[in-house]
Amino acid sequence: MGGARSSAAGRKEPIERQPVGEGLGGLLRKAARLMARNGFHGASMRDLAKVTGRSLSGLYHYARSKEDLLYLINFHGFTTLVEHGRARGMAFRGPREKLRGFISFHVRYFAAHRDEMRVLMWGTQALSDERARTIRNLKDRYTAILREIVRNVCRSAAKGPVSEKSIDRKTFLLFGMMNWIYGWYSAARHGAPEELAEEIYRTFLYGLSGRRRERRKFPAQEVAPLWN
Amino acid sequence: MGGARSSAAGRKEPIERQPVGEGLGGLLRKAARLMARNGFHGASMRDLAKVTGRSLSGLYHYARSKEDLLYLINFHGFTTLVEHGRARGMAFRGPREKLRGFISFHVRYFAAHRDEMRVLMWGTQALSDERARTIRNLKDRYTAILREIVRNVCRSAAKGPVSEKSIDRKTFLLFGMMNWIYGWYSAARHGAPEELAEEIYRTFLYGLSGRRRERRKFPAQEVAPLWN
Repeated sequence: MGGARSSAAGRKEPIERQPVGEGLGGLLRKAARLMARNGFHGASMRDLAKVTGRSLSGLYHYARSKEDLLYLINFHGFTTLVEHGRARGMAFRGPREKLRGFISFHVRYFAAHRDEMRVLMWGTQALSDERARTIRNLKDRYTAILREIVRNVCRSAAKGPVSEKSIDRKTFLLFGMMNWIYGWYSAARHGAPEELAEEIYRTFLYGLSGRRRERRKFPAQEVAPLWN
Repeated sequence: MGGARSSAAGRKEPIERQPVGEGLGGLLRKAARLMARNGFHGASMRDLAKVTGRSLSGLYHYARSKEDLLYLINFHGFTTLVEHGRARGMAFRGPREKLRGFISFHVRYFAAHRDEMRVLMWGTQALSDERARTIRNLKDRYTAILREIVRNVCRSAAKGPVSEKSIDRKTFLLFGMMNWIYGWYSAARHGAPEELAEEIYRTFLYGLSGRRRERRKFPAQEVAPLWN
């Protein structure tokens, strides 16, 4: 404890300011894996220390409690999503390309980080009010990015005006298609994440009755690691 | 305890054979409400007895443990869905009408029973292996009903063949749109359940770029109560 870096026990800085290097990154990944398997209440700090290969006091250096760990998994998960969501919005020019880029990143990211995804799905019930607000704020920012993309695709694709209420609903329906995969998707049975992302993109844009094929192939992109 | 009806403590019959009358129905509804708010681990048998207006031994008449209650909520929830899903498949003739009927029932049912929905979303982690199998079996049957409807709509709507893998994925994407509503939907902000169901139906069938309007109005149906 103590040392060059301020420890969790004696820290004055908020814990989310800790650099997400090899140490914290690996720790959060392993903590998410155990929590995803045993549930939040089924994973003790002692178990978490064990699976992360640390002593209890070594774990306390990063997090004083399970709630700290849950918060860090949420904070860094949604921060990464917001940053990449925004980057996808800027990297492509047309509304449909932006939509495709966003779906591609979100789906491949979630497919690659399923334990973290399951933990993010739990919501903020176990967090303090202030931390819950911070996470909700990040989620709202992420939703707003996709909502803007969906609005622009609607403007260019739909004949006739689309109400703001309908754009809201469609944005959440798209999140539903993408997020629900944590409960059913397996690459072996349902195809590679890129194939799944393309299916979501085409279903959302054209529906079951759509005939058109995109001329360009779905963009191949690297999935950013979750924690650094 | 004891009396005319066999009690949970002394029972030999499986607990899911208990008639879902006023007593068990109301009890499960209240138990689901508390579990949805406090989480499975955050609701004790003592709390559950209190919110259901029973003594602990009165609660034991129906369920020996929280796991019993969780199982009963899952069992009766999915049994109702399977029965109604099948009925919707038979009540309508054309593939699109069947699809519309299924979406309409599922969405309005979930919108009307949000606490139960949240509990069903938790999955079967906290159940015994045998009970988890029973629930998975019910879920598989429910999924198969929608899958068959989606396959028939694809056959009639899509130009060219649609692979079984794609039908699988589309079925789960539709479940994603419908089930994810538990995290965001509010009738005040996003419109009545019927309006939401219509948005899902149209998005799934035509996508963002769809222009066609259904001639017939979305069928108005009564939402069946969850427990009887």
